[in-house]
Amino acid sequence: MSVRVFVTGGTFDKEYDELTGTLHFEATHLPEMLRRGRCMLDVRVDVLMMIDSLEMKEAHRQRIVQACREAPEKQIVITHGTDTMVDTARMLSDGVPGKTIVLTGAMVPYAFGSSDGLFNLGSALSFAQTLAPGVYVAMNGRYFTADNVVKNRDVGVFEEQGG
Amino acid sequence: MSVRVFVTGGTFDKEYDELTGTLHFEATHLPEMLRRGRCMLDVRVDVLMMIDSLEMKEAHRQRIVQACREAPEKQIVITHGTDTMVDTARMLSDGVPGKTIVLTGAMVPYAFGSSDGLFNLGSALSFAQTLAPGVYVAMNGRYFTADNVVKNRDVGVFEEQGG
Amino acid sequence: MSVRVFVTGGTFDKEYDELTGTLHFEATHLPEMLRRGRCMLDVRVDVLMMIDSLEMKEAHRQRIVQACREAPEKQIVITHGTDTMVDTARMLSDGVPGKTIVLTGAMVPYAFGSSDGLFNLGSALSFAQTLAPGVYVAMNGRYFTADNVVKNRDVGVFEEQGG
Amino acid sequence: MSVRVFVTGGTFDKEYDELTGTLHFEATHLPEMLRRGRCMLDVRVDVLMMIDSLEMKEAHRQRIVQACREAPEKQIVITHGTDTMVDTARMLSDGVPGKTIVLTGAMVPYAFGSSDGLFNLGSALSFAQTLAPGVYVAMNGRYFTADNVVKNRDVGVFEEQGG
Repeated sequence: MSVRVFVTGGTFDKEYDELTGTLHFEATHLPEMLRRGRCMLDVRVDVLMMIDSLEMKEAHRQRIVQACREAPEKQIVITHGTDTMVDTARMLSDGVPGKTIVLTGAMVPYAFGSSDGLFNLGSALSFAQTLAPGVYVAMNGRYFTADNVVKNRDVGVFEEQGG
Repeated sequence: MSVRVFVTGGTFDKEYDELTGTLHFEATHLPEMLRRGRCMLDVRVDVLMMIDSLEMKEAHRQRIVQACREAPEKQIVITHGTDTMVDTARMLSDGVPGKTIVLTGAMVPYAFGSSDGLFNLGSALSFAQTLAPGVYVAMNGRYFTADNVVKNRDVGVFEEQGG
Repeated sequence: MSVRVFVTGGTFDKEYDELTGTLHFEATHLPEMLRRGRCMLDVRVDVLMMIDSLEMKEAHRQRIVQACREAPEKQIVITHGTDTMVDTARMLSDGVPGKTIVLTGAMVPYAFGSSDGLFNLGSALSFAQTLAPGVYVAMNGRYFTADNVVKNRDVGVFEEQGG
Repeated sequence: MSVRVFVTGGTFDKEYDELTGTLHFEATHLPEMLRRGRCMLDVRVDVLMMIDSLEMKEAHRQRIVQACREAPEKQIVITHGTDTMVDTARMLSDGVPGKTIVLTGAMVPYAFGSSDGLFNLGSALSFAQTLAPGVYVAMNGRYFTADNVVKNRDVGVFEEQGG
């Protein structure tokens, strides 16, 4: 089974810039994370953009939808900032039928030792292999369908909409 | 969905004993790993034993089978040393029908920064939620059925038997 | 030999706030760092303030000078943001005679795995025990006297003024 | 000031071999540690041997003495297993006059996140720059002269002989 991973940036890939004392993006950590997970899946990683999801605009989301449509793989994982992950999930839900698309991210950058990123990546790749076609968010060890998930910003976890 | 996690030891939970310079077991790292993964699944962790899987005997495996049978949960994750993980998977396959049981482990102890443990735990918990009843090994980002998996000791990865 | 450590904040002690995605201060990491270094020196840690050194004003520096004067110890280490460390060193140089005072900091927060903080702390505590009375900056494995050091912001290292 | 670093192995440089589940030596971590400490000292690193200090024999120690004698530098740091560090220190004390030689090591391998190695390296390099000629052990944030130090194996710390 082949899985395509699309990288869009988000906390997942943020790094500390020691000259300015701010967070920024350099190269994605996905290949390093897959090596660390000793991942033997047939995975192809493509970087679509490297941005904070609060800066994501309609055009960025269109580009993600387009990439998912054009990918030959039926299983897709997207790394994404958590703040607008749900918005992108909904647009994908309308725009890409017949594929299992799993969005995931991290609350703490992978480069900062205490990140949840590696856990979430293992989780997202596994859900992508087993869930029926549809669009999902994989966070907090769980999966949510695109039409029934919100980020609870007060506590930093994803929940069902009614939850 | 409730998932039961049974801890049996293995590389996953090994630590460095700085007084003797050897690897040993103290408490399991599972609760810390679940916190780091911001896991919000309903998970109950039970430590069945804390041993190297090369020391695992028939009686230990019987105890694991028994624990899986008696657990009220239908979804079970077992952390286990990789060397004899396949043996335990096969015994569970014969002994525990009607449940989704996923065995996982690590090639490097979680306590040593570079471990694959967090990736594997995220993966195993996800497969446990989505795979049909049966016994599986979740390693290297993939899942294998208990009757068709071997550890390739030369390279340290799990493969299909023919693979 | 007793060493007093005064904590003032700086990159050393910054943490990632996963709810806001920004860097902030919580408790100091000094006690954890001393434990990790298995430090058996007679060290007393006091937190004077927890601020970015770019926010440090005359009044903050006066407070640091006062604390160094009042401390019974002759050996003092101060953790400090790197951006204005030299300014504080100069004020201490004028205001606190007869003690060995060593300022140190970090280019990357201790909480982010790749920090230089632990190296710098080991270095500063050692210089404090061995250098003659005076005020010093300990960074990059070296020590500098307060009157002959600048931070080269282009590359993020400390140098002699002429350097 | 130039400092020569001689690497002899020890816990400092041990790594986990994931194929055998044992600790072994590969390349030294010293260059990576110096980079992480943003060390700007003029340091030259030479690997003399990569062994557990319990395996160190008279011939190994003779080789260390010889290397220290022949080095043009007056400041030398030696990374060494902690178990017989004191023995090597005493032999150096008899055999290498007129230089400041500082032995250091680690209780936990650098490659395992929780190591004291980076703290000890920062400490040893600093003591090497400031202590009078002689042979010293730098551990636990302190320095000890070669003729008055023992490793207390029950607690894993270095102490004065009477201590």
